[in-house]
Amino acid sequence: MDLECASQETVKQGLLARGWPPIKGFSKHVKTKVLEFFSLLIKLGQDDPRRVVHSLKAGLALTLVSLFYYYQPLYKSFGVSAMWAVITVVVVFEFSVGATLGKGVNRGLATLLAGGLAVGAHQLANLSGRIGEPIVLGIFVFLQAAVSTFVRFCPQIKARYDYGLLIFILTFSLISISGFRDDEVLELVHKRLLTVLIGGSTCVIISVLVFPVWAGQDLHNLIASNMEKLGIFLEGFGDEYFKMPEDGESEEDRPFLQGYKSVLDSKTIEDALANFARWEPRHGRFQFRHPWKQYLKIGALTRKCASRIESLNGHLYADIQAKREIRSKIQETCTTISMESGKALKELSMAIKTMVKPFAADIHIENSKSSVKNLDTLLKSGLWDDETDLLEVVPVATVASLLIDVVTCTAEIAESVNELATMLKFEVVEPTVSPEKPETGQPKIGIS
Amino acid sequence: MDLECASQETVKQGLLARGWPPIKGFSKHVKTKVLEFFSLLIKLGQDDPRRVVHSLKAGLALTLVSLFYYYQPLYKSFGVSAMWAVITVVVVFEFSVGATLGKGVNRGLATLLAGGLAVGAHQLANLSGRIGEPIVLGIFVFLQAAVSTFVRFCPQIKARYDYGLLIFILTFSLISISGFRDDEVLELVHKRLLTVLIGGSTCVIISVLVFPVWAGQDLHNLIASNMEKLGIFLEGFGDEYFKMPEDGESEEDRPFLQGYKSVLDSKTIEDALANFARWEPRHGRFQFRHPWKQYLKIGALTRKCASRIESLNGHLYADIQAKREIRSKIQETCTTISMESGKALKELSMAIKTMVKPFAADIHIENSKSSVKNLDTLLKSGLWDDETDLLEVVPVATVASLLIDVVTCTAEIAESVNELATMLKFEVVEPTVSPEKPETGQPKIGIS
Repeated sequence: MDLECASQETVKQGLLARGWPPIKGFSKHVKTKVLEFFSLLIKLGQDDPRRVVHSLKAGLALTLVSLFYYYQPLYKSFGVSAMWAVITVVVVFEFSVGATLGKGVNRGLATLLAGGLAVGAHQLANLSGRIGEPIVLGIFVFLQAAVSTFVRFCPQIKARYDYGLLIFILTFSLISISGFRDDEVLELVHKRLLTVLIGGSTCVIISVLVFPVWAGQDLHNLIASNMEKLGIFLEGFGDEYFKMPEDGESEEDRPFLQGYKSVLDSKTIEDALANFARWEPRHGRFQFRHPWKQYLKIGALTRKCASRIESLNGHLYADIQAKREIRSKIQETCTTISMESGKALKELSMAIKTMVKPFAADIHIENSKSSVKNLDTLLKSGLWDDETDLLEVVPVATVASLLIDVVTCTAEIAESVNELATMLKFEVVEPTVSPEKPETGQPKIGIS
Repeated sequence: MDLECASQETVKQGLLARGWPPIKGFSKHVKTKVLEFFSLLIKLGQDDPRRVVHSLKAGLALTLVSLFYYYQPLYKSFGVSAMWAVITVVVVFEFSVGATLGKGVNRGLATLLAGGLAVGAHQLANLSGRIGEPIVLGIFVFLQAAVSTFVRFCPQIKARYDYGLLIFILTFSLISISGFRDDEVLELVHKRLLTVLIGGSTCVIISVLVFPVWAGQDLHNLIASNMEKLGIFLEGFGDEYFKMPEDGESEEDRPFLQGYKSVLDSKTIEDALANFARWEPRHGRFQFRHPWKQYLKIGALTRKCASRIESLNGHLYADIQAKREIRSKIQETCTTISMESGKALKELSMAIKTMVKPFAADIHIENSKSSVKNLDTLLKSGLWDDETDLLEVVPVATVASLLIDVVTCTAEIAESVNELATMLKFEVVEPTVSPEKPETGQPKIGIS
């Protein structure tokens, strides 16, 4: 056997040495794939080092609960049931404290409730004799599985208690069925509950004490940084739109303007984070009943603004551009609107980040609103003469109306950030440098 | 004890009978909540009766595997390990065949792989003596848990193999730790694998044979019906926009125009369905390697079109409406564009539904394109005189440019549906009634 293996090995090495093409090609392909995979893993770790920490925490939690097997006195009291502590750690330990707590509480309560009901079902089934017992148990298992599975379709319940219902079905079935073979049902329930509690609390303790990741903090940062991304786009938009277009320029040439795109798809992650955050206890500047719903409201308004910005972005790369003369007439006003809305959004983002009452944002919004009035006057006063082609006015008119929409959105965002500031009693800090006062009076007419 | 309970009961009933306000209010509140919950459940069942069937199927699968406990010969060969069949059924049984198959395959392969590696780890640990063994095992458990947890962050792996990795961590930990107490590790792995296979195949068989729900079929229908919803909006848009606006009218008055809204948020569900569909074997008109990616492409284009329609919808209820005279000038052309794009989308939707090559869609798109040319001419020929306020032209110009965008989107959708038709060799059926031919030549000028 050993000789055979050795000779096969020699043949293989011979083939490899001679560079048998299919093997060489295949091994090269595998090598590339493996290298790609490793560089992807390294990138994942660099993007968010908390991922590495989380993996180590998961390993630690699992190693800790496995002591139940290794340490004789512990093993004596739990025996094979210690397995449930291990299972609980594997499935309950999640990235954020909120997700871990939510799953832990779901699992604990569901085990308690299902265990209690299963004991009742076992007692009832016991009354029906040795032949009737499996039939009665079967009916119970069928009914609870069907009803609980159906209830899981309910969206409100699915969002928060889906995992609890799954564990309810699991525990009820296992305990009531086991009861048929093992009459110590109460002890079974007791051990199960205890091991689940031990596993669950190991997860929660490690997740809270060792470099905790708070879903609430993440949601807070996400909302602020999304707003900042829109601000960056708006600050840069005016200059980009009105500068002399260069041939062959495309989206890739202005990466700083593409940050807003991730905002459009952020609903799912925001909802998930808010769901987890609701389970989290007081931490840092966040209370237990922090107004997470208000964050979701701000997030929705930010996305609405982002969809307008998506349309504006389309106009940066449109094939049909308005004539230079027409564009230059509204250049200054539009650039001011865009710039001031951008500044307002960045201010609001900073206000959320530092939890300080937004001070200058209202002034920037007033500035942009008064520029909108100027734009109105400009559009009314007639931008064109009889020879102007309406087709050349349309893109400019569309950009103008989108910018007006953006100002409305920004004002809405500011209002809901102010609501948040009132709810959370944001600090009031006098700024050291005061921003420019709103412009009023005569509309400024552009280069013309 | 019994007496005490009874007396408490009497007091309670007495209070209830006298209608003690807080209790009365509370019980009324609970009653309302319970009734609401039940009517919600009934609605869930009526919306999709397959949910009821699925719940019954889940109950059936669970009752079937519990036979391993009730039936003596089966229990003899598996003993307590039969528990794993029950656990597998509870966690693997999902709504669609694809999701069930995906989870089942993940669980089966992960158990096999982790079981094999755990046996190896057990042998290695055995070499290090009674004291060294738990240390070596602990190191193995820690390392595999940390590495596997980290790999789960990789998005490509998370999408398809997240559950497999979870089961890998679970099985490896359980078996290598159990090995410390139980030297029959091979038998343990063997029993675990067998029971997981039995549980998994019970799920797959029931999910395929009893009223199967195919994720692929659902994705197919979803894509077609989303397209139809946009078509319905566009067919109705022209008449709604140009009709005499009535005071106080709002979105609620035109429910038939609101169907498109669900299209905007359909990305998550489309991605999930495509992910499940990839696991599904040939069924009906769908093969194993059906081009699901092409469906996702069509879905993305449909969403792009829906975002334009969202903007159009905003103009139906805008505060500033264009002057009637200006609107009436482009009424006929815009109505034609909207109507023809709508018809094209409905044709394309029907083509996907029936898997018949779209026949009339191209003609409708040609019609809408030639109307776009008419609109261009109309805009160029000058819609206004010197006294026209540009602010009154802007809304009309914006609607016109959005409609032009919609035509482009529709053409893109048609192209990708045609690609799908080629990939899947859609049937060619000659229609019985031929639609109108494209209009060419002189642009029609509206009412003016």
